[in-house]
Amino acid sequence: MASIFSRIINGEIPCYKIKEDAFFIAFLDIAPLREGHVLVVPKQEVDKLFDVSGDILSRWLLFAQPIAHAIEQVFACNRCGLSVIGLEVPHAHMHLVPINNAGDLNFEQPKLKLSAERMKEIQDLLCEQIGKVG
Amino acid sequence: MASIFSRIINGEIPCYKIKEDAFFIAFLDIAPLREGHVLVVPKQEVDKLFDVSGDILSRWLLFAQPIAHAIEQVFACNRCGLSVIGLEVPHAHMHLVPINNAGDLNFEQPKLKLSAERMKEIQDLLCEQIGKVG
Repeated sequence: MASIFSRIINGEIPCYKIKEDAFFIAFLDIAPLREGHVLVVPKQEVDKLFDVSGDILSRWLLFAQPIAHAIEQVFACNRCGLSVIGLEVPHAHMHLVPINNAGDLNFEQPKLKLSAERMKEIQDLLCEQIGKVG
Repeated sequence: MASIFSRIINGEIPCYKIKEDAFFIAFLDIAPLREGHVLVVPKQEVDKLFDVSGDILSRWLLFAQPIAHAIEQVFACNRCGLSVIGLEVPHAHMHLVPINNAGDLNFEQPKLKLSAERMKEIQDLLCEQIGKVG
């Protein structure tokens, strides 16, 4: 059965899309640690990040770079943190989260619940900023 | 002033080295979250991961891949997790940590203190395994 991320990639499940190319899709995490929390997912459905093909691995951080810069511009933070855990969905994915301290990347803390209006606003802010920084 | 990681790269400070090439060095974190916790550091001294040059970004996960596979082979874990926080040392670095749950990547938990003998054993185990998986 296709992972929930493959169903998002195939358009079966909606998402707040931030960026897409032939190899990756990025969208807002619907249970974010902080506002601006983005998931970067390869279209190749592989469970573990380091089992993804070398070609995809070499493109991953480059694809994420303008998203991370946009997160750093839009949200008050020291920088964009990055985490790959992957124990809940068997489809490799990278978390990008604006952080001010190590605790902001602690996945044991309660997740936020944002309104659809706020999610759309965050999507628009990030997409606009990515358009500027390219 | 050179970062502590540049001083390790330059050989001024010793480390338990796991792997090195022209662009990166990997060594054991001396205050690990878990046994097998490795730092992957670009030789280019840049504070934030996503400010590193595109060429280095494209090589980073590829360099880390055999280390992550070795961690998964040597230590009892579900997989190798990955985290980039970077608030303490202004030289971009990636943490590779064997994890069984999200809490294993929580940097607010107390760090381990391992003996020099155990650090050397872990270094040897990982280097031997990297030699196998190449």
